[in-house]
Amino acid sequence: MTRFALTVEYDGRPFMGWQRQAHGPSVQGALEAAALAITGETVGMHAAGRTDAGVHALAMRAHCDIAKPIGSFRLMEALNARLRPHPVAVLRCETVADDWHARFSCLGRAYEYRIYNRRAPLTWEAGLAWQVPQPLDEEAMAAAAAMLVGRHDFTTFRSAHCQADSPVRTLDLLSVERVGERVAVRAAARSFLHHQVRSMVGCLALVGMGRWAPSDVADALAARDRGRLGLNAPPDGLFFTGAVYPEG
Amino acid sequence: MTRFALTVEYDGRPFMGWQRQAHGPSVQGALEAAALAITGETVGMHAAGRTDAGVHALAMRAHCDIAKPIGSFRLMEALNARLRPHPVAVLRCETVADDWHARFSCLGRAYEYRIYNRRAPLTWEAGLAWQVPQPLDEEAMAAAAAMLVGRHDFTTFRSAHCQADSPVRTLDLLSVERVGERVAVRAAARSFLHHQVRSMVGCLALVGMGRWAPSDVADALAARDRGRLGLNAPPDGLFFTGAVYPEG
Repeated sequence: MTRFALTVEYDGRPFMGWQRQAHGPSVQGALEAAALAITGETVGMHAAGRTDAGVHALAMRAHCDIAKPIGSFRLMEALNARLRPHPVAVLRCETVADDWHARFSCLGRAYEYRIYNRRAPLTWEAGLAWQVPQPLDEEAMAAAAAMLVGRHDFTTFRSAHCQADSPVRTLDLLSVERVGERVAVRAAARSFLHHQVRSMVGCLALVGMGRWAPSDVADALAARDRGRLGLNAPPDGLFFTGAVYPEG
Repeated sequence: MTRFALTVEYDGRPFMGWQRQAHGPSVQGALEAAALAITGETVGMHAAGRTDAGVHALAMRAHCDIAKPIGSFRLMEALNARLRPHPVAVLRCETVADDWHARFSCLGRAYEYRIYNRRAPLTWEAGLAWQVPQPLDEEAMAAAAAMLVGRHDFTTFRSAHCQADSPVRTLDLLSVERVGERVAVRAAARSFLHHQVRSMVGCLALVGMGRWAPSDVADALAARDRGRLGLNAPPDGLFFTGAVYPEG
């Protein structure tokens, strides 16, 4: 058996999410079907993060074990050929040690949430960003974001379906940057709770619209109450942008 | 009659081009149908440039005349509502003088051509960029691009269907910039010949791949012979990015 680490880009629009589903297309299912066609083996794909329906990835990390002798470059090319016409592409493929695990070895995860702050509907970005027509004050959003950085109980920003043992997470980065009509929220942490990024972005957007003060975000966090969540942002704008692993 | 100037974004993938066609969808047709539905008038839309099938626009400029009393903001909102589900959006709308003409008043046009220089297939950018798997030397491409800037007879870079009276154009800008795997070619001129940008980009790509020397581009230009064109880049990567008009 050889273990391969993959870096995968995907458009989440046609998928029910990363995870294999009985009743609909998934990124994992597309990759596993491609690997089966190439190797004749039932190959399990394991990812750094299981993105929800409609969420995208610029650089998801995943691994799989394959018995058939095949080089990493050839595997990448064969996967990309077999993945068509799914909007999933393997950007990099390399052999790794047998104990390297895309999920359990991961030391950090990063997301970017893309907002189009304009009245006009989206054209080619439809489903790839959240269109917010009200003017957003990105400086107020940044001030509110700073209140969420650090080690906190994020119960307010956690889906009712979250399976994590603890609601405590350490948020290392939450930044807000505007370039023209585009507002990007970037988040980094060792791990996130289910819906955490979308929940944080939703509340930051309320601040940007002037419906919440930045301190309302701190109050919602302190309340540790899902009922205090102001708004959950749609999946459209969310991109998994990278994962960090130990050196070597 | 009031004349309105529009700034329009569109995804060219589902269209046969800007220009109205008897046998397929067009951007002009979508806009005119929306204007008819709003005003009850047969409204003609005139653009700064008639993009080909599969070519996109970040900021096409267009104008139309409407008799019904309607404000520019309301017209924009109504057009955007009626344009759904076409991937066409009116970004700005303003009233202009009766002699302002999107095509004939235009003093300059700008395009951007987007290349993804990578082996992996495109996911959400499929149809929105040209995927070139061979490594591109962007510095050689920039050196070749510099040879095309200025006033020249661009016969080599002109489609056989070009209807312009003269093949002489003054190219004000042709730049090549790489950011990671993305290579952008930007072009600006008072006007362009049919297929000129795609033809220039195709030859620059040959230089980037090492199949042509930069001087081969100068030789092809000097030959004034369409048969000397190395390669016409596909429409996918081409975006109309802006038009310049006299002040006021």
